[in-house]
Amino acid sequence: MKIIVDAFGGDNAPLEVLKGCAMAVQEYHLTVVLTGDEEIIKKTAEENGVTLTGMEIVHAPDVVMVEDDPAAVIKNHGDSSLVKGLSLLAQGEGDAFVSAGSTGALVVGSSLLVKRIKGIKRAALAPIIPSNTGCYMLMDAGANLECRPEMLLQFGIMGSAYMNKIVKVNSPRVGLLNVGAEETKGTVLQKEAFALLKSAPVNFTGNIEPRDVPMGDCEVVVCDGFSGNIVLKLTEGLASAMMGNIKNILYKNTLTKLAAASIKGGLMELKKKMDYTEHGGAPLMGIAKPVIKAHGSSNANAFKNAIRQARDFVEHDVIGEIERSLEELKRTAQ
Amino acid sequence: MKIIVDAFGGDNAPLEVLKGCAMAVQEYHLTVVLTGDEEIIKKTAEENGVTLTGMEIVHAPDVVMVEDDPAAVIKNHGDSSLVKGLSLLAQGEGDAFVSAGSTGALVVGSSLLVKRIKGIKRAALAPIIPSNTGCYMLMDAGANLECRPEMLLQFGIMGSAYMNKIVKVNSPRVGLLNVGAEETKGTVLQKEAFALLKSAPVNFTGNIEPRDVPMGDCEVVVCDGFSGNIVLKLTEGLASAMMGNIKNILYKNTLTKLAAASIKGGLMELKKKMDYTEHGGAPLMGIAKPVIKAHGSSNANAFKNAIRQARDFVEHDVIGEIERSLEELKRTAQ
Repeated sequence: MKIIVDAFGGDNAPLEVLKGCAMAVQEYHLTVVLTGDEEIIKKTAEENGVTLTGMEIVHAPDVVMVEDDPAAVIKNHGDSSLVKGLSLLAQGEGDAFVSAGSTGALVVGSSLLVKRIKGIKRAALAPIIPSNTGCYMLMDAGANLECRPEMLLQFGIMGSAYMNKIVKVNSPRVGLLNVGAEETKGTVLQKEAFALLKSAPVNFTGNIEPRDVPMGDCEVVVCDGFSGNIVLKLTEGLASAMMGNIKNILYKNTLTKLAAASIKGGLMELKKKMDYTEHGGAPLMGIAKPVIKAHGSSNANAFKNAIRQARDFVEHDVIGEIERSLEELKRTAQ
Repeated sequence: MKIIVDAFGGDNAPLEVLKGCAMAVQEYHLTVVLTGDEEIIKKTAEENGVTLTGMEIVHAPDVVMVEDDPAAVIKNHGDSSLVKGLSLLAQGEGDAFVSAGSTGALVVGSSLLVKRIKGIKRAALAPIIPSNTGCYMLMDAGANLECRPEMLLQFGIMGSAYMNKIVKVNSPRVGLLNVGAEETKGTVLQKEAFALLKSAPVNFTGNIEPRDVPMGDCEVVVCDGFSGNIVLKLTEGLASAMMGNIKNILYKNTLTKLAAASIKGGLMELKKKMDYTEHGGAPLMGIAKPVIKAHGSSNANAFKNAIRQARDFVEHDVIGEIERSLEELKRTAQ
């Protein structure tokens, strides 16, 4: 299997990308195709003792910046590591693409170059977020700030396929993020999406209130991208604020520092449990081939996990499963 | 001063309401007007040794349930503790109203019976939520699921007045909840609200990303009610999930239990810091007289705090301040 990796995406590129790729090649026995400035890649690898064994490099000297207008990236940055990676994927020169670059450019570029699965209206950014009982896929987390009900229906179907195939959840519970549990709650969007999801070929458990999301009441949380972005970023911010508070308590004085020593193991476990990079990155669900958006601040381990996730995505044929579900939806609607 | 209190609102009514009122009467030297079934109030007080000194009772035998359609409550439940309380406030039989009853009924009932401040388009449910550095007013937290830009502008003005007058924040920072910091981010609603807030008589600090909200980067967080409801409920859920996790770590074995003993003080402080009932309830900002929505699960202490908050609201003339700000806005717009 060949995984294409954007060597110049994210805050820690290219070094952490290269380290992560080296780990992935060794652990998962796959080939990595790196896109980016060949000279810098080779120099960085050499200077830091990272082996490039099992990796090919496709030269792409340009880099897409977060400030760049996503809509113009393909036209203006055809020679960038991001656009080159997507082009290679579209041409079949690899099985999946991983990038920690600009989310906007990745969403627009994927939709235009790699295209969407037939029948899918819009691709969703779908991070997997830890919960008290496991994890859930949040979709959409920001690719589509405004959504139509049919899009939320498709998000539910796609999320269900992913959680079933990759995370091995049997009959994943799909919840519609809403301000109340009753069917009549929410705006027109939620009411119409509720009706559509109710008769979809997924295990729709109704509305889920935001307070039940971190408890793990659903494995797929469906919402518009504006709401999903709030869930994603508030979860990050609150977890970090809480951990900071706990740290302050533990480092208050000698006595609390002693206490800290004996619960350190538990806290480290909790930190690991809450670390969403353990699950890899956020797949762009709905694109015709696997595209994984790694977190902008990804370190080597996060890149390794995102590559593993890309491999699983290919191996378990998530896209085929989505296509079958869409077929089933069509049949039942007839 | 006379604070009208709905004796039959919330999960712990009427006992915890009565206890909270008794504490408030004693501490704040004010008069409480209780609305509700007179017989039950007297019986509950007697059986539990709660004194009703300093309280008047206005008999209202009916109770509004959370399931009741808010739009029909005034018509169908005129004899309820909630509607009776609002009527008394409208008639000037008290200075403020506190209820832990149905949010929807309280918002609709207040707008219809007590009316809105002249020029205010919609009332907002505005809880005060603890942050790492203090607290912030979140508005709207669910009264208006869909908003127009002018509403968000008014939310910013009203929240600023409250945080300045009641929480004593000098020049409160007003932030617009959005998916990114740049002015161009968000949907049409955020873009237009940004432009309006920029020239409003408040300390508008631009967009605030959800991850910075719990850090305390703003004292007023402005958003539509759907988004605000997510922030409110996800904050509750995550804090509770995190505290549960920490508890599990601390009660794992004898060693960790010993550790727990020495950091117990710090954790209790943190719990108190995160307890939003310490700030009282959520004011309905925009109503022509002070109306406080206490949390449905309020205990006696939360009711006491909500009554103190109502008193402060009256004493510091928050509504007058809002009216002056609206005047200023009008002047600068001319």
